[in-house]
Amino acid sequence: MPLGENHGDKNDSRYCGIETEFNDDMPFVLSHNLNGGFDFVVAPLMEPNYRPSLIDNASKHSSVLPFAGSDLVLTPTQWSSHVVGKISSWIDLDSEDDVLREDSEIALKQELAWASHLSLQACLLPTPKGKSCGNYARCVNQILQNLNNMQLWLRIPLAKSDDDHPMMTSSDGMVVEVTDSWELWNSFRLLCEHHSQLSVALDIQSSVPSISSIERWYGEPVKAAFVHTECYLTNARGYPCLSKRHQNLLSGFFYYSIQIVLSGKPVHNVPAKSKPSAANQTDTVAQQLPRHDLRPYLDYVGYLYQSMDPLSEQERFELGYRDFLQSPLQPLMDNLEAQTYETFEKDSVKYIQYQRAVSKALMDRIPDDMASTTTAVLMVVGAGRGPLVRASLQAAEETGRKLKVYAVEKNPNAVVTLHSLVKIERWEKIVTIISCDMRCWDAPEKADILVSELLGSFGDNELSPECLDGAQRFLKPDGISIPSSYTSFIQPVTTTKLYNDVKLHKDLVHFETAYVVKLHRLAKLSPSQTVFTFTHPNYSPNKSNQRYKKLRFDIPIETGSTIVHGFAGYFDAVLYKDVHLGIEPTTATPNMFSWFPIFFPLRSPVYVKAGSPIDFHIWRCCGNTKVWYEWCVTSPTESPVHNSNGRSYWVGL
Amino acid sequence: MPLGENHGDKNDSRYCGIETEFNDDMPFVLSHNLNGGFDFVVAPLMEPNYRPSLIDNASKHSSVLPFAGSDLVLTPTQWSSHVVGKISSWIDLDSEDDVLREDSEIALKQELAWASHLSLQACLLPTPKGKSCGNYARCVNQILQNLNNMQLWLRIPLAKSDDDHPMMTSSDGMVVEVTDSWELWNSFRLLCEHHSQLSVALDIQSSVPSISSIERWYGEPVKAAFVHTECYLTNARGYPCLSKRHQNLLSGFFYYSIQIVLSGKPVHNVPAKSKPSAANQTDTVAQQLPRHDLRPYLDYVGYLYQSMDPLSEQERFELGYRDFLQSPLQPLMDNLEAQTYETFEKDSVKYIQYQRAVSKALMDRIPDDMASTTTAVLMVVGAGRGPLVRASLQAAEETGRKLKVYAVEKNPNAVVTLHSLVKIERWEKIVTIISCDMRCWDAPEKADILVSELLGSFGDNELSPECLDGAQRFLKPDGISIPSSYTSFIQPVTTTKLYNDVKLHKDLVHFETAYVVKLHRLAKLSPSQTVFTFTHPNYSPNKSNQRYKKLRFDIPIETGSTIVHGFAGYFDAVLYKDVHLGIEPTTATPNMFSWFPIFFPLRSPVYVKAGSPIDFHIWRCCGNTKVWYEWCVTSPTESPVHNSNGRSYWVGL
Repeated sequence: MPLGENHGDKNDSRYCGIETEFNDDMPFVLSHNLNGGFDFVVAPLMEPNYRPSLIDNASKHSSVLPFAGSDLVLTPTQWSSHVVGKISSWIDLDSEDDVLREDSEIALKQELAWASHLSLQACLLPTPKGKSCGNYARCVNQILQNLNNMQLWLRIPLAKSDDDHPMMTSSDGMVVEVTDSWELWNSFRLLCEHHSQLSVALDIQSSVPSISSIERWYGEPVKAAFVHTECYLTNARGYPCLSKRHQNLLSGFFYYSIQIVLSGKPVHNVPAKSKPSAANQTDTVAQQLPRHDLRPYLDYVGYLYQSMDPLSEQERFELGYRDFLQSPLQPLMDNLEAQTYETFEKDSVKYIQYQRAVSKALMDRIPDDMASTTTAVLMVVGAGRGPLVRASLQAAEETGRKLKVYAVEKNPNAVVTLHSLVKIERWEKIVTIISCDMRCWDAPEKADILVSELLGSFGDNELSPECLDGAQRFLKPDGISIPSSYTSFIQPVTTTKLYNDVKLHKDLVHFETAYVVKLHRLAKLSPSQTVFTFTHPNYSPNKSNQRYKKLRFDIPIETGSTIVHGFAGYFDAVLYKDVHLGIEPTTATPNMFSWFPIFFPLRSPVYVKAGSPIDFHIWRCCGNTKVWYEWCVTSPTESPVHNSNGRSYWVGL
Repeated sequence: MPLGENHGDKNDSRYCGIETEFNDDMPFVLSHNLNGGFDFVVAPLMEPNYRPSLIDNASKHSSVLPFAGSDLVLTPTQWSSHVVGKISSWIDLDSEDDVLREDSEIALKQELAWASHLSLQACLLPTPKGKSCGNYARCVNQILQNLNNMQLWLRIPLAKSDDDHPMMTSSDGMVVEVTDSWELWNSFRLLCEHHSQLSVALDIQSSVPSISSIERWYGEPVKAAFVHTECYLTNARGYPCLSKRHQNLLSGFFYYSIQIVLSGKPVHNVPAKSKPSAANQTDTVAQQLPRHDLRPYLDYVGYLYQSMDPLSEQERFELGYRDFLQSPLQPLMDNLEAQTYETFEKDSVKYIQYQRAVSKALMDRIPDDMASTTTAVLMVVGAGRGPLVRASLQAAEETGRKLKVYAVEKNPNAVVTLHSLVKIERWEKIVTIISCDMRCWDAPEKADILVSELLGSFGDNELSPECLDGAQRFLKPDGISIPSSYTSFIQPVTTTKLYNDVKLHKDLVHFETAYVVKLHRLAKLSPSQTVFTFTHPNYSPNKSNQRYKKLRFDIPIETGSTIVHGFAGYFDAVLYKDVHLGIEPTTATPNMFSWFPIFFPLRSPVYVKAGSPIDFHIWRCCGNTKVWYEWCVTSPTESPVHNSNGRSYWVGL
């Protein structure tokens, strides 16, 4: 049964598995462990003493492979919902021993064919035995080319040492030399070209590596984490518990939908017949049957799961959008739909910030003693269905200033709503609606304040600079623009999920497009840095909205080596003086959901050795009919310049 | 509310709409008609007297388009679930009057932009006014290129006359000349390149055309059918009812998920305050409110809906597969999965036929007086998980004959199950399992009876001929093959849905592939004809499995002109003597679900003028490693030869 429900979402990490030994009687294995509270088993499929080379040729036509039971011993649903196949751990495809190597290849193929036949959701592949995994990867890659929907989980120890020649015990008890197990995974998956059905199962060790090296894994397709009973400590009452570092590790795994699998034999003498510990779930079935001997370990995992903070309202709203690539809006070329306005208008935090900014500007513009005699002219350019008109009028009321408002909007469908709004609210004497593109409107007078919300996820990417350059014609020389400036930010990230989603399209265009996306399964490799800044109004004589920025990102040495799949972008805007609005993670406006980050992909992931810097270049280019970005990496290796001449991705003027 | 639930599926035709007049007060229009029992309204969006040319240029920046209400008068869900936009019927894009033509284009774009803004599911386009619709189609085609998910329903009268110059009244009261309204639709959609968001709404007339001309429409994307109150007759008690031909028409529409929309004013004086007629639904809300004046017409539609036969078990099973393209299995190259065996094994009708065939063969082979002394050798080639072994043993028991069975199977995963089956059933002394490809098995003795189930949807397409040619080596010279022969069948069809689904892939390969598909939305244009026959065993000295067939299909003259999107294929097999098995629609074995038809697409749909024959050619080609089909049309026009050299689609040996 699931670990708990307090998390509020359909997170896979609610389900906890158990690693079992080979047993012919699969129905027993399954019922014993499901009754014991586990949701699935990671079970060997084949008798562990079987070696293909020991079968004599003559009997091959009549012999049957030594699988655990036949496909009929469980229902198709039981196989696919509750069994992960564990591939024989003796398999060593890079052995110097020819017989062992050939046996390994035959057995691996036989076991995976059987698992496919059963439509299992996943199989666990044993940890590569040595440093080199070329033949193992080739064989797995061959199988991946013709696999049904099954995932292959490559078992990798979660280990990274700062020593030069550290030793580590792998899952099958062999001692191997590993500096950073991420390198092993990275080699294997590069050989398999980031295949989307190849994923990772991490083996948690007694010692936990540094946080920044662990965070790399959150950008990788980690599906499961094995926790051995030997990793547990003992609490004051004799029950198993985990160290603080291990607890934090598991919380991270839960957050990223990584399933926990318990492994090993019980090593604690839990007080017999005592009352269930505080962490226990009440489970009437389990209370009647003999208690599963790993139940105290499972209960502790359930306790950790239930201790997590519930999702905030914003997180629940964003759940369905996580790591889902969207093309950025083209609000200049296209008209927004009613439902899009509806969503954005619900973002009350944003309009409260605008109202604060307008209030401050009005107070600065009109001294108290002139409030009753002076009327400020305020123009909302890109008024949509009217939320900024409302916020501006509320600011006027709050400050006791008099206002005349022009609402300029190019979308004739939104203008319909604006008219009905003005009628309902009886604003006819205060608000004039202009159905026109702000860039070509011939204004009858000049404005004290120009209010707009034309920002995209990367600030200038929805062409706010070009629109406001056009609109400042009708701003008084000392007039105020809200926003008064905005800046974009960027940082390198690991995100296998997004890289694979872009790759699915099998074309250049999608690798040269920037996407709006609620980033979730990613590793931020270095703090974000500022990119481009625009200020309004801008009266400089040689002004240009073209930009170029070169950035160097340093990755902390303790992170280890990494892979960069692309760059995550954000913005921050100064509305007026100290009133700002933004999504840069370290300074983001809380509870605002109008913008997700932007993602600039790389056509080929860039491997970055521990301690090497990343040099990134980005250009904002302007043509007569469009604006676009180009970008590239020049260190540690050169990437192609992406999106040359805006051939793949551009925003229309 | 839905018309009824007895149909057992999620069919769209449960929902009935009503065509309304322009009304500023959309909330009233919606609540009045929903309370009246309708599920959606087809409502004009724009004030019908509006003409863009009457708006003076000066006021354009401040004027607002005369739409019915603003987007805020209904919730986004109400707009998208309950409102179909009706585009102004005065629009005439092919008028000789320049002002009218230009006004039409502006208004059409404004109305469709507004409907997109509201995220309506569909808009109804008025019937083309004349015989020529080039400019109308160009304009709609432009809009389709950048449309959101909205469907455009082109309103077409359901009319076909055998006269030369018949007249017909269109929806807006104009008298137009039409021989066959399908031609109008066909021109329009060919101009729009079969765009998947362009569909049809049929206007039912007082007279109903011939059945075969109506059936053409079932292969077209008809989404709705309008029934005018004037089409109704009056029954003995003064209530509206429909003629038998109209009743059959509506049943067909229900079956093909075509929604009914009622239209017009009440023309019956339904007895006041009488008890509800037998056809009435009990609807407490509607009983309290004043009764909707079209309610008696709606009730009659509901009565027809509820009178339909409920879906059979087979139809319910097949619902989810309707018109869903699947690549044919490659059972020789690939191994089937457990779930596939599971599905096929459930088809009890098929195995009953096999059992009958084996029984008859055993009785012929072994006279009664030798039953106790003679043991027949029966080989199941391609035994899978054993269903034919079981059927054969049951036949032996039923006939009192003694049997020795060899079960030959190449899939090692299925062999695992076979072994466990033999053990559970205690068949060890009777059944020998051979884990081997039948084509290379060195049999220890020869068989009296060879039983196989290697047939695909098109009979020979899963390479039964090649497999059985290999297996007949171990059949006694007078031995029996079950099946003893099989024949493929084919017929031309209209199926816009499948054509568009193939086109989605944007490549040649998918247009040169044959698909397995549960055909539903299609028109069968001519009776199926036989294609290839294979007989087993085949001892002819120059035998070849290559085949060529040329077929001529005549379409009944009363059908009218048609379009061919491809060819539907079937098979029929003689298992033994009078025991057969097949899916050819007119002779199909009832309640058998192992096979769906096969579909051979055409790269370009072929227009066939009324009375013209279709000449179709198909080849079965054999190479060293693969077998494939090539096909083409030579009349009324030449298509390219499809799948030359098996470049796109083949079955591996």
